[in-house]
Amino acid sequence: MANATPTFLQIFITGGTFDKEYNFVTGQLYFKDTHLPEMLDRGRCTLDIDIKTLMMVDSLDMTEEDREIIIHNCRKTPASKILITHGTDTMSQTAKALAKASIEGKTIVLTGAMIPYAFGNSSDGFFNLGSALAFLQTLPGGVYIAMNGRCFQWDQVRKNTSTGFFESL
Amino acid sequence: MANATPTFLQIFITGGTFDKEYNFVTGQLYFKDTHLPEMLDRGRCTLDIDIKTLMMVDSLDMTEEDREIIIHNCRKTPASKILITHGTDTMSQTAKALAKASIEGKTIVLTGAMIPYAFGNSSDGFFNLGSALAFLQTLPGGVYIAMNGRCFQWDQVRKNTSTGFFESL
Amino acid sequence: MANATPTFLQIFITGGTFDKEYNFVTGQLYFKDTHLPEMLDRGRCTLDIDIKTLMMVDSLDMTEEDREIIIHNCRKTPASKILITHGTDTMSQTAKALAKASIEGKTIVLTGAMIPYAFGNSSDGFFNLGSALAFLQTLPGGVYIAMNGRCFQWDQVRKNTSTGFFESL
Amino acid sequence: MANATPTFLQIFITGGTFDKEYNFVTGQLYFKDTHLPEMLDRGRCTLDIDIKTLMMVDSLDMTEEDREIIIHNCRKTPASKILITHGTDTMSQTAKALAKASIEGKTIVLTGAMIPYAFGNSSDGFFNLGSALAFLQTLPGGVYIAMNGRCFQWDQVRKNTSTGFFESL
Repeated sequence: MANATPTFLQIFITGGTFDKEYNFVTGQLYFKDTHLPEMLDRGRCTLDIDIKTLMMVDSLDMTEEDREIIIHNCRKTPASKILITHGTDTMSQTAKALAKASIEGKTIVLTGAMIPYAFGNSSDGFFNLGSALAFLQTLPGGVYIAMNGRCFQWDQVRKNTSTGFFESL
Repeated sequence: MANATPTFLQIFITGGTFDKEYNFVTGQLYFKDTHLPEMLDRGRCTLDIDIKTLMMVDSLDMTEEDREIIIHNCRKTPASKILITHGTDTMSQTAKALAKASIEGKTIVLTGAMIPYAFGNSSDGFFNLGSALAFLQTLPGGVYIAMNGRCFQWDQVRKNTSTGFFESL
Repeated sequence: MANATPTFLQIFITGGTFDKEYNFVTGQLYFKDTHLPEMLDRGRCTLDIDIKTLMMVDSLDMTEEDREIIIHNCRKTPASKILITHGTDTMSQTAKALAKASIEGKTIVLTGAMIPYAFGNSSDGFFNLGSALAFLQTLPGGVYIAMNGRCFQWDQVRKNTSTGFFESL
Repeated sequence: MANATPTFLQIFITGGTFDKEYNFVTGQLYFKDTHLPEMLDRGRCTLDIDIKTLMMVDSLDMTEEDREIIIHNCRKTPASKILITHGTDTMSQTAKALAKASIEGKTIVLTGAMIPYAFGNSSDGFFNLGSALAFLQTLPGGVYIAMNGRCFQWDQVRKNTSTGFFESL
């Protein structure tokens, strides 16, 4: 609830489909800057949020070192509510690594998108961001994945790689 | 959480800016059909949801009879989690009427948009829908307003009519 | 053709649905700035173009003084190719006024939109701009209206006010 | 001009970036159906147009057999005005093949896009379609490329592969 909101919410950007762009010269997808600030602006969001880009990688390319950086930053931030944007392919792996790191008393929600936000009217990203921020404010300490309008405990979900939907285990 | 999700979530449509369209012949805004089904589809939402259109009105034109219809439907639905899309101008009034109706044990979240969903890349509606659905799943019984990424108790919020933002009382 | 392109093309902005925006506080349509520069950028247009905003008015509010300003500017610009963005309701009237002014040796094309460019994926404006610029480059001196993928001589067209389409007389 | 419009305009679809979609399961671009009908509808185009999909290929994969199919269809259609949507990478090659085929008395315009139409607010495709249709109606017999708001004779243009813009030779 509004009056239970922590001083600020922390958003960590790690890349993923969410923030991919289309390079019209090469025809390839790539990363430029995150779209999070413009998305929060468009969502007319009045929450106190700090955004920090940790990396911009395809989650299939995410290394254990990258996951250490994410864990380190989750520990270090004074925020107790942390949203992580992340590629969907290895979102569960990072969620597991965060859970194993036993970061006490923090609510950590990972979210992403199946279609880049930059691809306009077909992307799920803006919807996912809204739901992830709401789950972040209301759920107790723990590590969660927010996708498809739902929120899953880190160890009770998998991505169905043939449909692209997240399913309960 | 996924395993605490009720059998189904109920969405009641009442109109508001959320679902307005532009009539290119008259240059006026008007209502045709709700965009909720296509929005849930685009959000790749896998929640079990039932959508029912109660009315399609500008919230400044909403009458006490309209509010009775909303209350009646909230009582009647077997769902214990209810999302109502509503114009922002009198959202607080309808929230108050719902609270006064003392509908036991149900979580009712009202949401809306400042810019019509049909107006593409500038609308806040898709973000608000995502956050409202998440608040709906996680908050206890009561009547709430979800706007600007936040959720307010029905009696602790007002719309600032000069900025368009919802503020805590 | 490319090598017959005049030194530069002149675009005069006069307002119309083309450039209308939605005011989320009042729920009314209004004018802020023209979208022409961003549209040409998005169209990856490499033509040499000078843009000048003459006024920002709904064409139903356009006065004879406004039309005098348009005529005066069409005479004054050194460009021989002039595109005018204009509301559709009185586009024919302005075209007639321009034709009566007998501006020698210039090709003048008026275009507009039925749905504001700012309303995203439903607007015809971007398509109309592309076609109007092409007609401008290829047609001989005269006054024309470019709408619906077609180009009409100023005295051989009317807007069908019930369908919103421009029709040959 | 309106009264010089041929009985109908022929559009041949060959694929290219114009019609690419994003596959959210694989993260790759692919072809489903052409967007031309919805684009003409959105452009409120009232021209008499026949659309035929000849193939859906990336222009880097276009073979000489594919080009023979295009030439064959350009000859066979009763239309004297033909628009071809085509990938930009080998647009000049196909234009050359069409010119060498000496199809008498027909105006053939090739156009494409640097960013898929499906990618929403960043695509140049809708603008290019508008300009290509206008050039098609106004230019004499010959083979042309319409890109960047301009129209080039088939033998006086090349795509700058580092910038993505078409330039006069």
